[in-house]
Formats: sequence, structure tokens, C-alpha cells
Amino acid sequence: MQLETRPVRIGIIGLGPRGETLLANLLAMTGEVEIVAVCDLQEARINKILGILAKAERTQPKAFSNYQEMLALPELEGVLIPTSWNSHLQIARDAMAQGKYAGIEVGGATSLDELWQLVHAAEATGVSCMMLENCCYGRNELMALNLARKGLFGELVHCSCGYEHDLAYMACEIENGFERALHNLHRNCDLYPTHGLGPIAKILRINRGNRFISLTSTASKARGFAAAAEKNNWQGCAGHKVFNMGDVVTTVIRCAQGETITMTHCVSLPRPYSRCCRVQGTKGIWLEDAGGIFIDGISPTCQQIDVAGNPYTVHKWNKVEEFYQQYDHPLWQEFRRNPIGGHGGMDILTLRAFLAAIRDHAEPPIDVYDCAAWMSITCLSEQSIALGGMPLPCPDFTNGKWFNRTPAPPSIWCLDEVYEK
Amino acid sequence: MQLETRPVRIGIIGLGPRGETLLANLLAMTGEVEIVAVCDLQEARINKILGILAKAERTQPKAFSNYQEMLALPELEGVLIPTSWNSHLQIARDAMAQGKYAGIEVGGATSLDELWQLVHAAEATGVSCMMLENCCYGRNELMALNLARKGLFGELVHCSCGYEHDLAYMACEIENGFERALHNLHRNCDLYPTHGLGPIAKILRINRGNRFISLTSTASKARGFAAAAEKNNWQGCAGHKVFNMGDVVTTVIRCAQGETITMTHCVSLPRPYSRCCRVQGTKGIWLEDAGGIFIDGISPTCQQIDVAGNPYTVHKWNKVEEFYQQYDHPLWQEFRRNPIGGHGGMDILTLRAFLAAIRDHAEPPIDVYDCAAWMSITCLSEQSIALGGMPLPCPDFTNGKWFNRTPAPPSIWCLDEVYEK
Repeated sequence: MQLETRPVRIGIIGLGPRGETLLANLLAMTGEVEIVAVCDLQEARINKILGILAKAERTQPKAFSNYQEMLALPELEGVLIPTSWNSHLQIARDAMAQGKYAGIEVGGATSLDELWQLVHAAEATGVSCMMLENCCYGRNELMALNLARKGLFGELVHCSCGYEHDLAYMACEIENGFERALHNLHRNCDLYPTHGLGPIAKILRINRGNRFISLTSTASKARGFAAAAEKNNWQGCAGHKVFNMGDVVTTVIRCAQGETITMTHCVSLPRPYSRCCRVQGTKGIWLEDAGGIFIDGISPTCQQIDVAGNPYTVHKWNKVEEFYQQYDHPLWQEFRRNPIGGHGGMDILTLRAFLAAIRDHAEPPIDVYDCAAWMSITCLSEQSIALGGMPLPCPDFTNGKWFNRTPAPPSIWCLDEVYEK
Repeated sequence: MQLETRPVRIGIIGLGPRGETLLANLLAMTGEVEIVAVCDLQEARINKILGILAKAERTQPKAFSNYQEMLALPELEGVLIPTSWNSHLQIARDAMAQGKYAGIEVGGATSLDELWQLVHAAEATGVSCMMLENCCYGRNELMALNLARKGLFGELVHCSCGYEHDLAYMACEIENGFERALHNLHRNCDLYPTHGLGPIAKILRINRGNRFISLTSTASKARGFAAAAEKNNWQGCAGHKVFNMGDVVTTVIRCAQGETITMTHCVSLPRPYSRCCRVQGTKGIWLEDAGGIFIDGISPTCQQIDVAGNPYTVHKWNKVEEFYQQYDHPLWQEFRRNPIGGHGGMDILTLRAFLAAIRDHAEPPIDVYDCAAWMSITCLSEQSIALGGMPLPCPDFTNGKWFNRTPAPPSIWCLDEVYEK
């Protein structure tokens, strides 16, 4: 893969497990990035990271326990912020206020206010906040974007997505302070919307000609975490036996252009992983759980006869893999020749997109309006559930700019249009 | 399959295409049923049916154009009512008022009132109304019931279901008066809930210890029917170019015991058929679209290592077919030794269940409360969509009897408990 190689000077705020994972990916990207500063409240974590960098024979970064001091460094161009969900949005706001690009991790918001603050900081400074939503660079998601922009699905009508991942062990991580476990304990909502919703929002042109307009959300009873905790003899639960998070949360979003999105959040029950994506239009559909694509006129059909002698048509799936050769997104056509990094390469692609935006002083492919719209689903779903499934309006974080916002500048990282070199 | 063979004396009201299909199945059931009366407003249809019966060397039934006159026949024990959706509930009410068991076809209601009338008629006379919901006797649905009752899914938490079937050609059947086309033209709702919801409602013990408590419903834009009509040069549309029915309607139901059900109705877009069933509990899941079952402790898992060196567990699907040998429902274990009839045998099984209830003067396995609860989803979803996704209450058609209604009398046809002979 051909790359601009000027190393971008970044800092990392938050050196916990996700910070270590990001670091592992950054270390694989020779010559693309320089880590000039690191920050954590815990000295042990700083020392661990410095040790990893020393072992990799990289320049030692400046170390900070106060992120505001770190943000004042003039050489710093951007920061990655793998801190807790209750802090990363405020830190991102402060980073942008200092003119630094902010790379935040996935997650959902606790209030609309913290999202508006993010938007205001970006609008005031001209730098942006990119969510490092690696699933936007997943192979199938990018291929679906490609198929959508080539018109193979026809006019888009409906999508679904979700996060279904057995993380019931988190019930036993309350005592050790694992933050996500506390969200599961105290909240009832789609806590983790963006792995599914990010790619779908891009495909539906959210914030660029479309927007989320309203949603309803409904939670099932909560049994999975308690069952997992009981199986572990309630070790690690800090005395808690009731978890507020419904096992399956279903959220239905309406979009301004008439599309609907059905979302599923399920992290407390045993089952195979899925982001249960579906992209459907007047001419075809991709359905992740079926591993299939059906495109009218391309995919197979056959005629059968019913018991009364009447003919009917049977549609059959193509396997998703059958479309790779012809319809892989250009980025993946290049990437599969040089696959590196975690999560099937998605992490590396996402970091490269962030670094490219900083290097070019450009709008990142996932910008502050995307961050705000996607993350708002969490607090809105929480409110809708609390109100018995009441439909609630989704804010327009662009204040009307979505009518005619053009796609981000053409680049191979662009998630709005498919860029063919 | 061992059967009671006293022929049950039934009549058929409505001799259109669905009536013909029912007749084809009835003719395959030698010695189980006698068709003593038929009724239709069109003489040509009556003559066609009489001809089919003559050719099959069956006794000629009495023929009627007025169904009330037919219902007065003392020898008649029950009636099948494959008439239009706008008439079959009133006819069923009148049949029960005359002491005849009523077998109605699938579909949804246009008002709650017509469902209350059905309930009142059954309660007043002691005979019941059975919906001939053949999908309740589908192999996978019955196996899921079996797995649920054996506890393999653990405590049930969430289900989904739907009706996804490309019937866009119906856009061109307005001029010929095809009734369902008129529903698609004028209404916006989950028009066809019961193929998916029937089996799921049985698995969740709806009306016997559980009930639907509220729902929200959301419709996508409507493009599919118009696209199909345009492709046909608007022939058959009677001048209509706008169809009210959203292409994808998503309905989310909450149950009294805390389970949720997500429903999808999509009949105007090209895609493979699916009833998109999902049955999920604290220990496992069946997911129709994945063709898979995962049961904790039975299905395979493996350990993998992420980019940062941390282990994680991967759950893998069993194919549904792997469970047939051990977990096929007893009814299917018997049926697969003698497979006859349409829709993979489901139609025959359903008719046999109806005839058995009449023969034994017993409660049918799908009773009037089931009919009312299932069919109410259509008009409630229509109202919720009209109100922007507002949550609406589901009526308790049992008036509290659901607290402690026991399962229908044990029989192999029972859909509440799994009857082992």
C-alpha cells in the first residue's frame, strides 16, 4: 500500500488495555507516526508503555499525568484518547480547544450535552474529532458501501445493525472497577451502538444529505449478567445481584430520507458474535447473519410449483465471498496485498485514516458530527426505554448543514463516496 | 402416523385460490374429513369445486351462496373460512354463534373491535376459533418449541420473527381486485404478522402465563411496490402510483414476563424468503437467518488471542440440521415417516389439529385468544406508525385469565407443552 510517510506527531491519553492495543498497532506502522507524548493518571501504566517503546527502540515520548499540560505541547498534532467512556468526550473537547485533532474510541454518550460541547469545540477551532470506529473499515462493511454507491442495492430503504457479543464475564468485573461493567450495572440502553451503526450511517449518508430523525428503544428483561455472576459465585460483583441493562435492547431509528434502521444490543447472553448488519434497497440486500447478498438480476432465482399447482419464484442467496473479487472496496483491494494489524486489519486502516487527516489538515472521514450523531443513540435509547418505548427526536448536530454538506475531500479513506484512484 | 379416523363433517366458506389449496390438502387426508357443504358468492367457483370433488369421487356437498344458511345445517361440525381478510372474522363470529368450530386463515385485524367480537362469540358458545397458522407446525418452529420446553435455551429473554417474502407483483393486482393488494395500497402496518409471531407466541406461552403488553412500530419509506408497478408499465394498478405500505415495517413487542419480540414485515423488495425467527434465552439461541443454533455447553467454542496478546472466546454455530436427530418435536418424528401435503407438511398438520379439536370437542391448540392477540398486532402497528412510533398497549383479550390458564389438553397437536406419547 502506497503511503505518505511523514510521521505524524501524536500523543496518547489513557494507557490502559485499549491504549496498549492501539500502541501495538502504531508500532506496526513504521515511519507513519511518532509518539511524542503519553499521559496517564497511573505512573505504573506510563512506565509500562515507556518500556514497550524502549524495547521497540522508539524515541521516548514525554510523559504526563495531567492531560492539559500535555495538550499544551506545540509539537503535538493530535491525540488518541482511549480513556474511560465517562471522560473521553471532555478530553476530546479540550484537545480540540487546543487545536489538536482528537481520536476517540467507540462508545456511547451519557448526555446530549457532552456531544454538543464536542461539536462546539470543533466548530470553534476548525480541527475535528474522529471516532476510531474500526468497523467502518471492515471488509464487508466497505464492500456494502461500494455496492450501495454503485447502485446495486437500488434506492436504500432499510438497514439493521447491532452488537451481539457474549461479554457476560463483565458482571464479575465490578469490584476491579472495569468501567463498562458499571455502565451495564447502572444503565439500560444500547450502550455500544457504533460498531454496527457507524458503517450503516455512512452508507445512508447520515450528516451529508440525511440524518437520524427519531428513535424508539425497548429492553428485554435482564438475566444474563446475573446468571454469569451466579455461576461465578457472585465473585467480583461487589454485592450486586441486579443488573439494570436489559439482555437485548432493540432500537429503531427513522431517517430524514425515510429509511429505517433496526439496532440490537446484546452482550450478556451466550451466542456467536455478530454485528447483524443488513443493508436493503429496492434492488437487493446484504444480510450478515445469512452470510449472503441478493441482488435482483444477478443472484439466482428458480421457479417452483405449490400444492395447488401454482408457480412461484424462489430467491437464493449468493455467499458474500462471491462478491469480493468484483466488488471489494478499493481500499481493501489494496489492503489485502499488505495485511497487517489487529481485528482483521480494521484497526490499522482506521488509524491510518486518522493520521492522514492530521497530515493533510483535512476533515477526517468520521467527523465530529458523526461522533455526536452516533453516540447520541446511547442516551436517547436510555431515555426512550425509561419512557416505555416513547419515540424521541434525534438532535440535528449540524444545525441544518446536513442538507448540502458535501462528502469529505476525496481520498482513499473517505467513507462517504468510494474513491477510485 | 396413527390417526383417529372418524371423518369430521366440515364446510368451506370461500372457494377462491386459498380455498382450492385447502381442498387439495383435505383430499389427501383420506377418511379424516367429509366436506358436507361449500359456500361462495360466485357460482363459477362453486361449480369448479364441485367438479374437483366429483373427479376425486367424493360425495357432493350441499352448495350455498348465503353462509348463514349453510351455518344452520345441523350436521355441520365446523367450517373453514378462507374468505377475504375483511370478512373472515365476522363469518367466524357467526359460525361460533351457531355452535360451529371456525377455522380461519392467517392475516391481521383491521380493528380491535372485530377481535373482541370473536372472543365474545367463543366465550358465549364454548366452541372456539382456530387460526390455521401452518407455520406453528413447521419443523424448525416445533423443534424450537421442544428445545425451549426442555430448557436448552435457559430462561427465554428475546425473540424475533417476521415475514419477508417478495410479493411486489401484488402492486399490479389492484385492478383485478386482489384484496391483499388493496391492503398494501391503503394501509401501513405489519399486515401479515402470524407466520412469524404464531410460533413465537406459543414458545413464549402467550395467553397462558404471559401476554403481549405493548408495542411500537416503525415503517420505512414505500418504494418497492411502485418500483414493481413501474417495471410493469403501471399495468394493473388502476391508476395508483403511491402505495402506503412501508417496505420494511419493524414492530417491537414487550411481554408481561419481560421478553421482547422484534418483528419485520417486508413483502415489496427482492430477497430470499425468511420468517427471520430467533428464540433466545440465558443459555442459547436459534437464529433462522444464520441457519444455526448455539447452546451453551453443547455448541463449540474456541479460544483465540488478540493483537495485544489477550485471550478471548469465540462461539460457533451448530447447523440447525444437527439438532434434528435428537431434538425434532415428537410430531415431526412421526410425520417424517409419512410426509404428505403442501408447505412441507405444515398445512396437513394444521388441518389435522383443527379436525382433532372438533372430533374431541376440545380446545384447539390455537384458540380464540391466540387469534385475537396475534391478529391485533396488525391494527396496533398501524396505529403506532400513524403516531410516529408511539408505544401502544396490547389488550388483554383473556381479561386476566392468562395468569393461570393451563395448556390445552395434552395431545400430540398441543403447541403449549411438548406431548410425548
